[in-house]
Amino acid sequence: MENVYSYGQLSAFTQNIFKKIGCSDEHAALATAVLVSADLRGIDSHGVARLSGYVRLWEAKRINATPDIRVVHETPSTAVVDGDAGLGLVVAPYAMAIAIEKARQVGTGWVSVRNSNHFGIAGYHAMMALQSDMIGMAMTNASALVAPTCSVERMLGTNPIAVAIPAAQQPPFVADFATTTAANGKLEILQRKNADAPAGWVQDKDGNSSTNAHALKEAGALLPLGSDREHGSHKGYALGSIVDIFSAVLSGASYGPWAPPFPAYVPMPENMPGQGLGHFFGAMRVDAFRPAEEFKQHMDNWIGRFRQAKPAPGYEKVLIPGDPERETESYRMENGIPVVAPVVNDLKQLGEKFGIAL
Amino acid sequence: MENVYSYGQLSAFTQNIFKKIGCSDEHAALATAVLVSADLRGIDSHGVARLSGYVRLWEAKRINATPDIRVVHETPSTAVVDGDAGLGLVVAPYAMAIAIEKARQVGTGWVSVRNSNHFGIAGYHAMMALQSDMIGMAMTNASALVAPTCSVERMLGTNPIAVAIPAAQQPPFVADFATTTAANGKLEILQRKNADAPAGWVQDKDGNSSTNAHALKEAGALLPLGSDREHGSHKGYALGSIVDIFSAVLSGASYGPWAPPFPAYVPMPENMPGQGLGHFFGAMRVDAFRPAEEFKQHMDNWIGRFRQAKPAPGYEKVLIPGDPERETESYRMENGIPVVAPVVNDLKQLGEKFGIAL
Repeated sequence: MENVYSYGQLSAFTQNIFKKIGCSDEHAALATAVLVSADLRGIDSHGVARLSGYVRLWEAKRINATPDIRVVHETPSTAVVDGDAGLGLVVAPYAMAIAIEKARQVGTGWVSVRNSNHFGIAGYHAMMALQSDMIGMAMTNASALVAPTCSVERMLGTNPIAVAIPAAQQPPFVADFATTTAANGKLEILQRKNADAPAGWVQDKDGNSSTNAHALKEAGALLPLGSDREHGSHKGYALGSIVDIFSAVLSGASYGPWAPPFPAYVPMPENMPGQGLGHFFGAMRVDAFRPAEEFKQHMDNWIGRFRQAKPAPGYEKVLIPGDPERETESYRMENGIPVVAPVVNDLKQLGEKFGIAL
Repeated sequence: MENVYSYGQLSAFTQNIFKKIGCSDEHAALATAVLVSADLRGIDSHGVARLSGYVRLWEAKRINATPDIRVVHETPSTAVVDGDAGLGLVVAPYAMAIAIEKARQVGTGWVSVRNSNHFGIAGYHAMMALQSDMIGMAMTNASALVAPTCSVERMLGTNPIAVAIPAAQQPPFVADFATTTAANGKLEILQRKNADAPAGWVQDKDGNSSTNAHALKEAGALLPLGSDREHGSHKGYALGSIVDIFSAVLSGASYGPWAPPFPAYVPMPENMPGQGLGHFFGAMRVDAFRPAEEFKQHMDNWIGRFRQAKPAPGYEKVLIPGDPERETESYRMENGIPVVAPVVNDLKQLGEKFGIAL
């Protein structure tokens, strides 16, 4: 039911598609690196499965393939970037590079971005900081699918947060997670299988907890991390709100229920209070706090100690954030990336439209 | 079963106790303002209920009443502060003030603190930024009570995060929450009542979900936000880890399972990799991103829209983070602060020891 493609195959195809919609060679290569890193790392919902979605946004003139991405305001440690409706896959690394350069100059750099689009996986951008011995952070708002605690209305996106922290001998600590109990991608997998969702992931249109994986299509909503009030969903709601405010209210993007939808067929919200989607990036030079080698030795000690934490019965070991994705990346780079049949069909149709073979 | 005291009464008593252990007038006043703000805001577990605990730490020579708090490393946007084993209630506002001053200079300021102690409620420190039209952040590590996902070992504290964001006409957005499903204080309330805990708050020593509110005393552990893997506890575990690393690995404090315990009778961990507890503070000048008035108008719009989100049946309205605490503060400032009998007795004993009437 699924085909396996090498990283090179998927990348070449993706890069050609981005060129066909008018991206420069440089932008096409960058957008491809970001997009296909999701497939490599096992976050299949954010990789080539979305490629035709980006193309449809371009067809609907909601994505500008030749954006003039620019800094519209800055201080020594901050900047606001206008993405000029460019691919988030291109705008985000541009903005993260500014955060890194500012950190080089004054210790930390913080960049809020408006007028952008879906930026792929947050972890890619956060990890850009690692090679400079910096801690990287990335977050983004997204179209509203999540109901605040005690509400039936969709007000927030799944608003992910990624934090990447360098170590010495150990691999880096890389957390990358939606601020909901379950990412929308996990729900999509259940929908394809026609399987039930665990209680606590979604609610129906009346706000009752539901195990219907299709509840979102029936006016339901995803639940914030914590699921319900008794289990701390007000904390997940607060986290998602912070991501929304840092990404979109600080930058002048469209926030909350007005965030632009990813599917091109969904009409844009009325009376949008800002431009496009928003992102927020941070970079902190480790040696702005203590010598980098000293910090990384302690990170090795931290990671080593947590790896040795006594596992619960039935579990082999305790994981460090980033372990599963890194293992998947290593495996798929060697053995190829499995792509499910509906996505293969989607890519093939896309290839036919542009005269590019998968 | 409980007595009601005015804010002035509790403050005067607390301030006198801090003076009796050797704090300067200035430090006693500051520590009191931080500590009693918890009682005012309804976070009773972090207020005067802990006063005798701080005194016992001073008696055990783990708190230095006359600390030489100093910056040991800095860049234009960062600093590391050594708290000299001072009261966290004093060290934290000192460090937050540095973050705010750095933000004034270069847009943002980030301060990691080592060699400190329990700092009261995180929200107090984050809110210090509001009057300067800045976003404030505060977090701290704490003694290990929380098991990572798939583990039975206590490796992290309840490691709270607070974020305060200014608005114009609306009150500020103030999130302040432990990165566990339930704060330890909520469990303590159930323990006093001999009531069961909801499933998902704690696990027993074998890693099974437990409703025993006393499970912590029987070698169990608190659960990260999300409760279990299926409901995203790896996200709560990641959040608590990030707080631990920013607060303690960046600064040189003691981290993870080596964080020093609050109860003075609990022996210090062996082979501590750093000094004392760690905190992390951030301040971001709003106008380092966009004009402050414009940002605050949009925050009013954000808050107003979320207040109007359709409530679920049985709920009157959707809350904004900070609403419940602000309402409690306003009520208690007017009507006094209820203090439960065991805490009243504890304070009275403390008063007798130092010759101070409650």
